[in-house]
Amino acid sequence: MTTNWPARYASRITGMVPSDIRELAKAMRQPDVISFGGGIPEPTLFPHDVVADSFQRILTDAKTARIALQYSESGGYMPLREWLAGYMGSMGAPCGPENILVTSGSQQGLDFVGRLLLSPGDTVLVETPTYIGALRAFDACEAKYGALPSPENPNPPAAKFGYLMPDFQNPQGTSLSLAEREDLLDRAEALDLPLLEDSAYEKLRFEGTPIPPLIALAIKRAGGIEKSRVLYTGTFSKTIVPSLRVGWLVAPSEVIAKLILIKQAADLHTSTLNQMVMMDLAQRMLNEQHLNHIRATYKRRRDVTLAALATHMPPGVSWTKPEGGLYIWVTLPPGVDGTAFATKALAENRVAVVSGKSCFAVNTVPNTIRLSFSLIPEDKAEEGVKRLAELLRRI
Amino acid sequence: MTTNWPARYASRITGMVPSDIRELAKAMRQPDVISFGGGIPEPTLFPHDVVADSFQRILTDAKTARIALQYSESGGYMPLREWLAGYMGSMGAPCGPENILVTSGSQQGLDFVGRLLLSPGDTVLVETPTYIGALRAFDACEAKYGALPSPENPNPPAAKFGYLMPDFQNPQGTSLSLAEREDLLDRAEALDLPLLEDSAYEKLRFEGTPIPPLIALAIKRAGGIEKSRVLYTGTFSKTIVPSLRVGWLVAPSEVIAKLILIKQAADLHTSTLNQMVMMDLAQRMLNEQHLNHIRATYKRRRDVTLAALATHMPPGVSWTKPEGGLYIWVTLPPGVDGTAFATKALAENRVAVVSGKSCFAVNTVPNTIRLSFSLIPEDKAEEGVKRLAELLRRI
Repeated sequence: MTTNWPARYASRITGMVPSDIRELAKAMRQPDVISFGGGIPEPTLFPHDVVADSFQRILTDAKTARIALQYSESGGYMPLREWLAGYMGSMGAPCGPENILVTSGSQQGLDFVGRLLLSPGDTVLVETPTYIGALRAFDACEAKYGALPSPENPNPPAAKFGYLMPDFQNPQGTSLSLAEREDLLDRAEALDLPLLEDSAYEKLRFEGTPIPPLIALAIKRAGGIEKSRVLYTGTFSKTIVPSLRVGWLVAPSEVIAKLILIKQAADLHTSTLNQMVMMDLAQRMLNEQHLNHIRATYKRRRDVTLAALATHMPPGVSWTKPEGGLYIWVTLPPGVDGTAFATKALAENRVAVVSGKSCFAVNTVPNTIRLSFSLIPEDKAEEGVKRLAELLRRI
Repeated sequence: MTTNWPARYASRITGMVPSDIRELAKAMRQPDVISFGGGIPEPTLFPHDVVADSFQRILTDAKTARIALQYSESGGYMPLREWLAGYMGSMGAPCGPENILVTSGSQQGLDFVGRLLLSPGDTVLVETPTYIGALRAFDACEAKYGALPSPENPNPPAAKFGYLMPDFQNPQGTSLSLAEREDLLDRAEALDLPLLEDSAYEKLRFEGTPIPPLIALAIKRAGGIEKSRVLYTGTFSKTIVPSLRVGWLVAPSEVIAKLILIKQAADLHTSTLNQMVMMDLAQRMLNEQHLNHIRATYKRRRDVTLAALATHMPPGVSWTKPEGGLYIWVTLPPGVDGTAFATKALAENRVAVVSGKSCFAVNTVPNTIRLSFSLIPEDKAEEGVKRLAELLRRI
């Protein structure tokens, strides 16, 4: 009567296993744990009242409610696509609504680009380390991995595209300088390599000068978006609110036309209502005043975490000093395994961190951990770092 | 500087083209067109006030708002998964929350099952004709197709799974009888063939006796869902509202565990807020009173359309008499091409219908069209059918 399900899964699915971070999420919720774990935004920064007001406005106006509750176009709600095109223009990346696909969060943009460009066994070039969620999306296409081209790695393997977060990267918190961006574009041109730019943390700069997104530099070089080789995913999750699951993807219109067909097959369209609300929220909240409020909160948390690291960490430990984003990347002394350290830190010291190893697709550096300061209470950061330092001294 | 994008697409993407129905949607919006085209629900049946109230309740209660706006579990909002497990139990399919995956509409369930079970070149067995959106989802996995096993087709090709809508099928409007369901389960067992049951129109029965879903029959045979070979996708789009994009998938827990990993890679999770609202709406609106109101509206539209067909259609034309759903399937005289007829009907007679040909993956019957009565004004149905009959007489 029964059937052997695992034997039926497509080969690319068989190897999929729950990620460490997912499992960690459960432990993090225990009240005695000091958590540098999940990279989720601070919920008290969500504009609750404005969100409630937006939904109410749209749902109580008969004209907007009729649109909001019905099926809609796979490409996205046209006024939002137009608004996003204008927004991209304001960031130096002029384009039209035909260059925008609204996605169910920017994660869906990563999944769709993988599905568009990858056949099983194809290679993607990534940063070392890189965002785990991107690896999971490309894994589902049975991707192989290499390292992005750079002065140290001038001859990467042949690949379908390169993926990176140029700003306050998850997990390192670091950014590419303007010179590094231009160098990467030079190399991408020489290799005829498309690039996928993930802008998740772009707007969370606490200090220093903003650097143009790769897509802006690429459009400038190409003379227009239609000839740009850079695709771009955007999100409102870190600047407004994550749960509406509205993100966007920017690309030449011929690429968007194919992605719309993928969108249609994948989930028809992103919630019409959520798109309308997100457009209203973006117009009301995506301003310097609101962003500065968010930045100030995360900057304070970064500052106390960096100060604690400087005070308590033993010699042989180094870490990044990010100018924005949510993460600090810590390199432990050689020989200390990040995964074993993270497990011990949680079990014995009640501090949650993410092992760096899961963030590598190639060239793994095992003695690394990621600290997220996004949710750390300012009065607990020092105690958390102190416990990590104690554990390090003990082992 | 530029790059050749089409040459870069994965092979399964190259052949993807916009569907006829999508293109038809634009024409249907012209005011002089009488439309039997798109199968979308009647928007005046959406419970606008209750939807607005639900959002307001959840967003203005600090306790629920905090959950509603944050990232959440890939498997779905646990209270909704529990509620859906109970709902499935009430339909004769007892299961637990570990057997439920919340999806972004039931279309995503079709996509995920394709991704779980299909490698390029694998075969799916489908009804002839079948739902176009399912074909598009499986096409993205480079599926091949065969016909589902039946007394007329006892030896189908080897396949990874079978897909069907047992109730008021899109596009035919017909249902499988209990005996046909039991026969299909016998054959699926003999072939060790998993089945994917799409229940999109299940609750839209206007008359006749409800028939248990395949999954209920399969669970009864297997002695529990964990050994059932039937997967099931559910939707609120036709009973409550489509635009929140909340659907669900029912499967043995080991299958759900893998699907959760696919969900995580695809879009992290379905909007937390929309899941909470949908649970509230389901509890308030998924009752016989609301469903009977919807059924009555669609029944009137079916009745006027069937009456007009009987009055006006020339000899040699036949059609289904559905007991529910949104569709009537019309077989034109042999030699009349459905696609040419639909094109002419729109251009010359200003009536929109869908050509049947796009609904076939195998065994195409070219002289067919689909009439959707979901949006037809009751005073326009006769005129629309009359024009189609006139066109038929002319050609």
